[in-house]
Amino acid sequence: MRTRPLKVALLGCGVVGSEVARIMTTHADDLTARIGAPVELAGVAVRRPSKVREGIDPALITTDATALLKRGDIDVAIEVIGGIEPARTLITTAFEHGISVVSANKALLAQDGAALHAAAGQAGLDLYYEAAVAGAIPLIRPLRESLAGDKINRVMGIVNGTTNFILDKMDATGAGYQEALDEATALGYAEADPTADVEGYDAAAKAAILAGIAFHTRVHLDDVYREGMTEVSAADFASAKRMGCTIKLLAILERAADGESVTARVHPAMIPLSHPLASVREAYNAVFVEAEAAGRLMFYGPGAGGAPTASAVLGDLVAVCRNKLAEATGPGESAYTQLPVSPMGDVVTRYHISLDVADKPGVLAQVATCFAEHGVSIDTVRQQGKDGEASLVVVTHRAPDASLSGTVEALRKLDTVRGVASIMRVEGE
Amino acid sequence: MRTRPLKVALLGCGVVGSEVARIMTTHADDLTARIGAPVELAGVAVRRPSKVREGIDPALITTDATALLKRGDIDVAIEVIGGIEPARTLITTAFEHGISVVSANKALLAQDGAALHAAAGQAGLDLYYEAAVAGAIPLIRPLRESLAGDKINRVMGIVNGTTNFILDKMDATGAGYQEALDEATALGYAEADPTADVEGYDAAAKAAILAGIAFHTRVHLDDVYREGMTEVSAADFASAKRMGCTIKLLAILERAADGESVTARVHPAMIPLSHPLASVREAYNAVFVEAEAAGRLMFYGPGAGGAPTASAVLGDLVAVCRNKLAEATGPGESAYTQLPVSPMGDVVTRYHISLDVADKPGVLAQVATCFAEHGVSIDTVRQQGKDGEASLVVVTHRAPDASLSGTVEALRKLDTVRGVASIMRVEGE
Ligand SMILES: NC(=O)c1ccc[n+]([C@@H]2O[C@H](COP(=O)([O-])OP(=O)(O)OC[C@H]3O[C@@H](n4cnc5c(N)ncnc54)[C@H](OP(=O)(O)O)[C@@H]3O)[C@@H](O)[C@H]2O)c1
Ligand SMILES: NC(=O)c1ccc[n+]([C@@H]2O[C@H](COP(=O)([O-])OP(=O)(O)OC[C@H]3O[C@@H](n4cnc5c(N)ncnc54)[C@H](OP(=O)(O)O)[C@@H]3O)[C@@H](O)[C@H]2O)c1
Repeated sequence: MRTRPLKVALLGCGVVGSEVARIMTTHADDLTARIGAPVELAGVAVRRPSKVREGIDPALITTDATALLKRGDIDVAIEVIGGIEPARTLITTAFEHGISVVSANKALLAQDGAALHAAAGQAGLDLYYEAAVAGAIPLIRPLRESLAGDKINRVMGIVNGTTNFILDKMDATGAGYQEALDEATALGYAEADPTADVEGYDAAAKAAILAGIAFHTRVHLDDVYREGMTEVSAADFASAKRMGCTIKLLAILERAADGESVTARVHPAMIPLSHPLASVREAYNAVFVEAEAAGRLMFYGPGAGGAPTASAVLGDLVAVCRNKLAEATGPGESAYTQLPVSPMGDVVTRYHISLDVADKPGVLAQVATCFAEHGVSIDTVRQQGKDGEASLVVVTHRAPDASLSGTVEALRKLDTVRGVASIMRVEGE
Repeated sequence: MRTRPLKVALLGCGVVGSEVARIMTTHADDLTARIGAPVELAGVAVRRPSKVREGIDPALITTDATALLKRGDIDVAIEVIGGIEPARTLITTAFEHGISVVSANKALLAQDGAALHAAAGQAGLDLYYEAAVAGAIPLIRPLRESLAGDKINRVMGIVNGTTNFILDKMDATGAGYQEALDEATALGYAEADPTADVEGYDAAAKAAILAGIAFHTRVHLDDVYREGMTEVSAADFASAKRMGCTIKLLAILERAADGESVTARVHPAMIPLSHPLASVREAYNAVFVEAEAAGRLMFYGPGAGGAPTASAVLGDLVAVCRNKLAEATGPGESAYTQLPVSPMGDVVTRYHISLDVADKPGVLAQVATCFAEHGVSIDTVRQQGKDGEASLVVVTHRAPDASLSGTVEALRKLDTVRGVASIMRVEGE
């Protein structure tokens, strides 16, 4: 056992960082035994130096993160500041100074993962970020290492706790979106500005990271099709229930049938109640993985929160420290397949479409013809009429997203179709 | 990229080994890219050399596994023979010849894990065995690496597919044990001699391996309390249903409340239908992990089968080969806590007890007194009487197993108690 400690710079000491610092202090002996050397919190960079931070030696606090990294004795930096800058520059500075990095920063990794991996690789250093996707749930390591001898064909998951909390409330209570969001905000599950969550940006960043790892290719945030869940209504949930489904905001990453490309998307979708993802409650996350040899795996747990996220950060810290002692690095970026990401139009899935139509004979025939002309085959139709108004609910068989878009465009032009009330994809068998 | 291949000796080519060989051949390019060097199947040791083995070059087949390991050019051995001997001697021989080992052998690891780890450590080699527990489900790596910075307090899982298939059938159809076993055998889910599965030996081996890793201590197969599921009856399922429960064969590993010891046990138990493990169907496995910071995690997937198990073996193969190229080793045994394993009597849990009693006044009072005298507090009692016979179903609060055993012994001595029809532990909140 080495007695000279490995020195850690903690960049950021908010929700996640404060828990990282706490566990590093309270569980120091365990970390020492597991790593094979003591780890020492050598400095903590923050924005507001005068803020009282329980359990942290004030002498460690600095507002100059760059100087902390440059002082020459740091082995590992933990970046839990978030956002693009200064996080990106700090991580790059760390690599320039021989410092391996553990980060929880999904936004940055989804945008600049390739460049950061390249910088780590050139410097012969580690860049680990288990905490960036699905909080405490071990996901990146299982995909990258446990399934390294398998071929992953599909990843489908609930990777945003805030939106799952909202959708779960809507499902359980019949509440509308705004009411459920208000409750989530009151309980601390949603931030004051919930845009990143409810518009799917957070899930899209995680989707990009997961897709790259699952398919051994590069997937940028901009490659991910994204639809938020602010339009999901109580009526959609009622429709879903009639079909034996619920609605979840899903990140779905698929290898195309011909194996020559992949798709990555985030959108609300109906899934059957019998699907394991349907029973993921409150702010929990869960990710389904389908691999050629392994079959269907699921990983479930808390997707966020200070302590759970810190657990993932510390798991990475132990690995990076062990690598450092062994003078080795863990697996870096694997993008050798260079599979391109296809546009959303190429995605093949099923659809649930609600139409407001005139309540007169021949409407169904007209609508059905429209679907047929666009090559979208209908699975079921439910017709409901009252007071001269009627609604048609159509569920399709699997069809390319582009064909569905074409169908909807054509439907809107029909005199007998007064409006397209909702369109939602249907996932899961 | 290195072009000289890493050479692999495959020891055993049965259900798992044949799939390992198949994937190594069909996915050679992917493995090369992920490892950073080609891997070559250099030899395949079997018992019956003349058996036709599709896709395997007959020139690679040998019955002399020892000679294969000693020939001097093997980098990694994959042990998928099973059982104690010759597997143990072969693994030891591998280490003596500088060969790292990937194994799927839970029986051997639960019995001789400490010695094998020591041999690997002394030789500076890897011993990986993700496939030994819960087949394709990444579990050992997440526990050992992802949660390396956390404190695991509890692991509770369904780790045997055969028994889960049988119990699921009994639950779904009301069938008795023998009928459900016959169906499992007919469908290939149970072996001709199902003892290892139905008596809980297989699950106990996995429990020992998981407990050691989860609590960073040594847990031997003999330390695991084990009860099979052959006594579980249709009546038990009916009772469970009345309580909103089902019955599963569980492996349960716990840190004692004072943190100074651990317990490891395998037995059938009632769990509430709302518990995620309750909905694990057919031969699937699932493991719940409770960690201090991470919270509650669940891992789910196929627990056995040639291809799923091969997926786990190949994940390990990639890791071991990468380590070899980096001239490093992965994390070895971690047993620094040296926490002792307490006997079953120290386990604290809840109980469901069915008694056949005389149908006369005062019986309940007598029974209740007996529980009270042994310090076991009763949660609910249900009394059912017909034709002078009656049954009492008692569900207790949490109590030490030893107190419960004492209670049952005393109950048997009461004149009014005609028999103890069943005793089952109740797990999960
Ligand atoms: N919270 C979660 O549940 C969760 C889950 C998964 C991943 N993550 C990721 O973890 C990261 C951190 O999230 P968080 O929730 O902990 O954020 P947070 O509570 O807002 O904390 C951010 C920390 O960074 C510090 N900081 C801000 N600008 C800085 C600068 N220029 N130089 C040095 N320090 C600076 C802040 O200092 P002050 O303390 O002085 O303000 C604060 O300590 C993000 O990438 C997030 O996406 C969070
Ligand atoms: N099957 C599963 O689903 C599963 C799941 C998880 C873990 N495992 C574990 O994986 C291991 C292998 O299981 P399996 O189901 O593949 O077993 P299996 O089908 O019985 O195959 C055993 C293989 O070992 C060979 N063999 C037996 N004795 C030998 C000897 N003395 N020297 C050389 N080769 C010998 C056999 O040769 P022949 O082919 O000539 O008979 C056969 O190829 C076991 O440890 C098991 O616990 C299996």
